[in-house]
Amino acid sequence: MSANANGNVLIDRDRLRSDIERNAEFGATEALKAQGHGRTVLSGTEANRRARDYLVERLEDAGLSVAIDTVGNIFGTWTPASADPDAAPVVAGSHLDSVPEGGIFDGPLGVYAALEAVRALQEAGVEPARPIAVVSFTEEEGTRFGGGLLGSSVATGHRTVEDALALTDDEGTTLEAALESIGYRGEGRLEPADWDAFLELHVEQDTRLEERAVPAGVVTTITGIVHANARFVGEADHAGTTGMKDRTDALVAASEFVLELERAGREFAGVGEDGPGTAVATVGKSHVRPNATNVVPGEVELGVDIRDVEAETMDRLLERARDCLDALEADRGVETELEIELEVEPAPMTDRCRNALQQSVADAGVESLSLHSGAAHDAMYVSRVTDAGMLFAPSRDGLSHTPREWTDWEDCATGARVLAEAIRRLASE
Amino acid sequence: MSANANGNVLIDRDRLRSDIERNAEFGATEALKAQGHGRTVLSGTEANRRARDYLVERLEDAGLSVAIDTVGNIFGTWTPASADPDAAPVVAGSHLDSVPEGGIFDGPLGVYAALEAVRALQEAGVEPARPIAVVSFTEEEGTRFGGGLLGSSVATGHRTVEDALALTDDEGTTLEAALESIGYRGEGRLEPADWDAFLELHVEQDTRLEERAVPAGVVTTITGIVHANARFVGEADHAGTTGMKDRTDALVAASEFVLELERAGREFAGVGEDGPGTAVATVGKSHVRPNATNVVPGEVELGVDIRDVEAETMDRLLERARDCLDALEADRGVETELEIELEVEPAPMTDRCRNALQQSVADAGVESLSLHSGAAHDAMYVSRVTDAGMLFAPSRDGLSHTPREWTDWEDCATGARVLAEAIRRLASE
Repeated sequence: MSANANGNVLIDRDRLRSDIERNAEFGATEALKAQGHGRTVLSGTEANRRARDYLVERLEDAGLSVAIDTVGNIFGTWTPASADPDAAPVVAGSHLDSVPEGGIFDGPLGVYAALEAVRALQEAGVEPARPIAVVSFTEEEGTRFGGGLLGSSVATGHRTVEDALALTDDEGTTLEAALESIGYRGEGRLEPADWDAFLELHVEQDTRLEERAVPAGVVTTITGIVHANARFVGEADHAGTTGMKDRTDALVAASEFVLELERAGREFAGVGEDGPGTAVATVGKSHVRPNATNVVPGEVELGVDIRDVEAETMDRLLERARDCLDALEADRGVETELEIELEVEPAPMTDRCRNALQQSVADAGVESLSLHSGAAHDAMYVSRVTDAGMLFAPSRDGLSHTPREWTDWEDCATGARVLAEAIRRLASE
Repeated sequence: MSANANGNVLIDRDRLRSDIERNAEFGATEALKAQGHGRTVLSGTEANRRARDYLVERLEDAGLSVAIDTVGNIFGTWTPASADPDAAPVVAGSHLDSVPEGGIFDGPLGVYAALEAVRALQEAGVEPARPIAVVSFTEEEGTRFGGGLLGSSVATGHRTVEDALALTDDEGTTLEAALESIGYRGEGRLEPADWDAFLELHVEQDTRLEERAVPAGVVTTITGIVHANARFVGEADHAGTTGMKDRTDALVAASEFVLELERAGREFAGVGEDGPGTAVATVGKSHVRPNATNVVPGEVELGVDIRDVEAETMDRLLERARDCLDALEADRGVETELEIELEVEPAPMTDRCRNALQQSVADAGVESLSLHSGAAHDAMYVSRVTDAGMLFAPSRDGLSHTPREWTDWEDCATGARVLAEAIRRLASE
């Protein structure tokens, strides 16, 4: 145990709950409350401004010095007397924005648990050797400006500041203008490469913890993601006058592809064999042209999502997709194209951070699972430039991105406690 | 041969061409002309007004008395001295409206060939026993007000005048207001039940005539049509965090349906066996919700189109569709629904009209084919209330609803000649 592990770290469960509940008011409507606990907090909106203002106040109340970077990332630093102010900080956090009609835990739990961890460490008289910071990244969800993981992608150099600020919403407003309008266009750029380590507590968005009644999950790897656009070009024809043998129907070709991708995904996930594995393959989006009941479809575009913790599996799934397209060209006379729109490598979490989380779980006397994350998180980009770890709290019924998203307050507190202990470990090194 | 068959009926090919070319100017743009011969003539627009005005002038020039009914159907009657003015008229015609960026023959050929037939009969000194009329039905295409075969459906009592006039376009303008704005909201209602017979010359929109180099097709039956909406409800889930075995993916279920419907359609059409038959089964439309690449589809709606000349075959195709939905409920756990949105019985053409057309083809010394119509036409509704027949002219490459739609002027003239002879036969009885 570190020399600084000199006190009992006690999470104030009610204080954490109060922060999350106060934050849940921003962007909530009566209709959303009627469905459970919903909120709509899109980047650069009034609801987002109020959520940010509330966080900044809470950070300052806890004695943290707050900085806003050029894309609106919020960064609050606690530099205790015990710490070398020039040492690389240990950072924890997540995001405050939501999807439209989203839940109240996805994002805010990680931000306010990080703040609660700092307050608990302070109150326990812990004397860390490094500064400790709380971060809230801008536009993690990507629902207003289309840039998922926006704040972390800019901070880690995966997207330029200029590109990010120039992103526009559906009405043509730039991220830059939106941030300026709410007073959160700051200066400089967060530099996670200079952080000692990053930890993110997040809701699981799956049922693995709930099914085993385990309150904490230590993430092994965040899956890689490929998004691809599969295009099928046939011939639009009159559905009444074009005989069955004379058609080049883009939708029947696309339907074969949908089924083959599911088949491949199930095989690689080992469904019915030694699975369930971690591979998933989905066609989530479809656009048909001209999309009229009485016209044989001339063109279909499908949005394909492939994920796994192993890059090789993703490559093999893509290969199956390509083979299927080749077969459809030969058998059905359609023209096809597969365009890769997003390609993110799997992001294994750093051993040092996983170990710190595992030891903290053990110290807390709670059970935990090691599991992968099928969803992307800011920790994914951060893990490319410094040590990173992730902790999951259970999601009731695995639901998220809905007002029915729920995590028990006890589980929130357990997550915050494990997070605080892990921060203490890392910041004492 | 009838006593009135006292002259040679000579079609003026150049006059017919001139009318169709003049009519083609309305709703044509330079861009559409660059693609071939395109026009956009939606009901109640300025282009439609000009097209109607031109037709009314031509009808009056030929000495026909013109009436406009309450839904804008145009009806020009020639009552020669030889005819009993109270006898039921023989009527021919089609429609002047087009789909957006449609061709110049689909509709206008049938209207101007009918007018040319009347002029040719007049010039040949034919003395018919019945009045002869030219009709142009409103909104056959249904692209502005969503009511396909609108004018003929009202005239034959399949749709009420009130319902028709209350139809709105995408901007909320009613058919009534649109017709008033162009001066074509008339009075009374056409009554095809009181017609002796109706003949419609139309482009084939298929390649059967072209493939056999035959200039005329006598329609046996207009296929029945069922439009149905097939709905698949699964569960929308995160594409990253929901394992392959935990999904109820509405799109994969819908894809199985698309393929099964194609399979059934090919079987009933006898593709690869004794076919091609006349059955067709199409999924032309698809809507996926929420339609995001990273979300497992929770709901899909498909627009289904089933046609055949035999009602029994259509029933059996629908049965296959329902069986497939039942199987998908059992195998994939989706909920399904099949809602019939349109159900039109096959419409056999009347023997008397088919015979008149066949004899006229033979007299003209040209080859003909007997064939079914896979597309709906105004003759379909008219055939429910009086004798009706249809004649097809060849479509180059089977194309229609595009500026590339084309029928050779020679074939237009042949169609008009057969039409004129058939009108003479029918009107002499």
